[in-house]
Amino acid sequence: MRVKITETVLRDAHQSLLATRMRTRDMLEVAEQLDQIGYFSLEMWGGATFDSSIRYLNEDPWQRLRDLKKKMNNTYAQMLLRGQNLVGYRHYSDDVVEKFVTKAYENGIDIFRIFDAVNDVRNMELSIKVAKGLGAHVQGTVCYTISPVHTVEKYVELAKQLEELECDSLCIKDMAGLLSPLDATQIISAMKKEISIPISLHCHCTSGMAPMSYMAACAVGVDVLDTALSPLAWGTSQPPTETVVAALKGTPYDTGLDLGAFEEAVKYFKDLKEKYRGILDPISEQIDTNVLIYQIPGGMLSNLVSQLKEQNALDKYSAVLEEMPRVREELGYPPLVTPTSQIVGTQAVLNVLMGERYKVIPKEVKDYVRGLYGRSPAPISPEIIGKIIGDEEPIHCRPADLLKPEYEKRKKEAEEKGIAKSEEDILTYILYPAIAPKFLKGEMEEESLAVIPPTPAAPPEYA
Amino acid sequence: MRVKITETVLRDAHQSLLATRMRTRDMLEVAEQLDQIGYFSLEMWGGATFDSSIRYLNEDPWQRLRDLKKKMNNTYAQMLLRGQNLVGYRHYSDDVVEKFVTKAYENGIDIFRIFDAVNDVRNMELSIKVAKGLGAHVQGTVCYTISPVHTVEKYVELAKQLEELECDSLCIKDMAGLLSPLDATQIISAMKKEISIPISLHCHCTSGMAPMSYMAACAVGVDVLDTALSPLAWGTSQPPTETVVAALKGTPYDTGLDLGAFEEAVKYFKDLKEKYRGILDPISEQIDTNVLIYQIPGGMLSNLVSQLKEQNALDKYSAVLEEMPRVREELGYPPLVTPTSQIVGTQAVLNVLMGERYKVIPKEVKDYVRGLYGRSPAPISPEIIGKIIGDEEPIHCRPADLLKPEYEKRKKEAEEKGIAKSEEDILTYILYPAIAPKFLKGEMEEESLAVIPPTPAAPPEYA
Ligand SMILES: [Co+2]
Ligand SMILES: [Co+2]
Repeated sequence: MRVKITETVLRDAHQSLLATRMRTRDMLEVAEQLDQIGYFSLEMWGGATFDSSIRYLNEDPWQRLRDLKKKMNNTYAQMLLRGQNLVGYRHYSDDVVEKFVTKAYENGIDIFRIFDAVNDVRNMELSIKVAKGLGAHVQGTVCYTISPVHTVEKYVELAKQLEELECDSLCIKDMAGLLSPLDATQIISAMKKEISIPISLHCHCTSGMAPMSYMAACAVGVDVLDTALSPLAWGTSQPPTETVVAALKGTPYDTGLDLGAFEEAVKYFKDLKEKYRGILDPISEQIDTNVLIYQIPGGMLSNLVSQLKEQNALDKYSAVLEEMPRVREELGYPPLVTPTSQIVGTQAVLNVLMGERYKVIPKEVKDYVRGLYGRSPAPISPEIIGKIIGDEEPIHCRPADLLKPEYEKRKKEAEEKGIAKSEEDILTYILYPAIAPKFLKGEMEEESLAVIPPTPAAPPEYA
Repeated sequence: MRVKITETVLRDAHQSLLATRMRTRDMLEVAEQLDQIGYFSLEMWGGATFDSSIRYLNEDPWQRLRDLKKKMNNTYAQMLLRGQNLVGYRHYSDDVVEKFVTKAYENGIDIFRIFDAVNDVRNMELSIKVAKGLGAHVQGTVCYTISPVHTVEKYVELAKQLEELECDSLCIKDMAGLLSPLDATQIISAMKKEISIPISLHCHCTSGMAPMSYMAACAVGVDVLDTALSPLAWGTSQPPTETVVAALKGTPYDTGLDLGAFEEAVKYFKDLKEKYRGILDPISEQIDTNVLIYQIPGGMLSNLVSQLKEQNALDKYSAVLEEMPRVREELGYPPLVTPTSQIVGTQAVLNVLMGERYKVIPKEVKDYVRGLYGRSPAPISPEIIGKIIGDEEPIHCRPADLLKPEYEKRKKEAEEKGIAKSEEDILTYILYPAIAPKFLKGEMEEESLAVIPPTPAAPPEYA
């Protein structure tokens, strides 16, 4: 049984290692190369790329999608969608979700990988339904995490629900690199007994186990593996594509891809990495088995470092790492992924920096406890609820049920501001109302790539 | 079936990443920690450490062995021995081999991992016999490489010969990181049918496949895996110990080691790595699937870079990489490991730099073709023999059969020079006659660790 490859170099790899800063022009130059390799799909949109494009790169994310799509004739264009959160950090009203998914499809997305941070299927239902209705391939996603309530049965149950929603495939998303070979074996083999759609496995290398878990997954029938070309692999990114392809050669799981086919693209990204070296945090490149203890996902480590650096509190790094799982437990063990990673992370930082736990509580944490992000995996204790939202009563319905339609209202606003030339622009405005106007008026500037001395090619000589 | 771990951080890891420069004092500080972890064995002597100790560190390698041994109460002390080459680069006479193995045993070695660069068992027989006679554990070694003559049957045949020589265990040594999961599966399962002694697997991460090959090896019954603590793992070194231990947790191959037990030692080596950063070649830290094409072992890449740098010819790097497999084929496909890696490597460099192939031929290459390193895996063509040694007739016997006893003669020399306070000193003198006198007279100085700016903890801010 052949294993297929989803290449993440244009999305997750640079999101994990290069703070999502890769420019569209740098992608376009290699897009045809990538399209020739024979990948199943190329993840190239969604996640943090939308935000980063307008915030830092003065780039229209919709234009990126259209331009890349033009170069992709053989490979499915894949995006990562945060369910009802789309590519933003809050729940959007159903009409916005419907419009966004439709426009993403029309602009070129073939495969929608849809997840919800707390694995609340209600938050994924609508985007799944809309994408299915358009004829797209929908990949329902289960976020992997470790907790007393995240059992194999629970994951299988989620997978079955997603299959019932007519997802075309299922993704197991291990954003923190916590999935061990044993977990992979147990979860995938259990799922294979209960669902018949193909299974993708998405791991980060943070703890170093991912390549071994991929091997184990192959043995129990995984269908697709997510990898990144080696210059942007390892560390907090995915396992390297060429290594995985080489390692599976000749086995029953052979990808069928030719090692020689990667040479040019690998060379391209090696050079590109040097260009972006200034934003490559050495911490992201490290493989650190501490994540097995603290269970912090890749992207979060580097975020945490810069957050603490801004506060001149890098010495609190270990204390915050230790606070993180405590907060997570109190919040009902959410998987740590956008936006729950920020929710847990920020609260943990505040708990440590303020010298008193829950002295300061951000709105997002309150909203989470109010149920506005969905149902927490484990119930939150009354004590914690009281501490965080006092006497307020959390909601129990699907969060978006409380949201009024928003599209037409925002459309009018955008038109009044004279910033909307297209429906895509209106969506950009709805998703990022604070920065979109400036961006849409053409008043943003591309941030410059800091010039720093290149890595010394030679080790210094001895004195 | 539990898998055991051989920790290489005190030998192969720093040989691969830090040019074999780790100081004994830096080892002693952590030795007790390491001894507590529960490893099967700790590789801590032999290979290039002997040479490096006297050449660069002004350290007596025998003293290192004795001092480390004192701190190791729970873990076998393991060394890498180059068969009849001992820890040098030529064949030594039988009396020297006998004396060296005896002294190594007496000074503390429990496990002798014995290999020969061309897998010529005749070159390993004597050291195996001597170590066995002393009561040591002998690990006969098969060097893994890729060529038309290196078939599974060939490796199994070698393993059987080593078992017949009463080796206590067998090691598959993949110094170049070329062993794929499929190779591991095929070779180990074939060996398991024919031999009954335990099998160790020693891989380097150079191509990134090693962790996956380790998984595959576990599935077919490998007994021991070689790993290095994560700060000195990956790249041209071994897979990381903690990652492998974590990845096997709960599987039938669980190492039984506790992840928490590594914390202090990992922290120690993280800090130590910073101290040695000046000699950490970034190339050694990279994982590069090019090795799958050029099949160059880890240590060789960094050697090659410094060799070319000295010649101001770093631009010839790719040309030399391409010449390497040509030379290797012409020389009968020797595995590339000390000293054949130097033999092939130097000739390849000369062939490229001189602008004419085999215009300059070092003595070592001639000796290799003369048969003085043993039988080449494939026969060398008469054309190449003629080109390299003219009308000379290669030998066909065991190379050491031509060597006269040497120990007593050198002992007398050393005594006349007044440099021999012990039999160990005499052996040091025999192995390194050019530098040993200066070292033994106490006239060497420890090379200083170059002071270079530490890696920036922070990514530079955007302008
Ligand atoms: Co990811
Ligand atoms: Co080695």
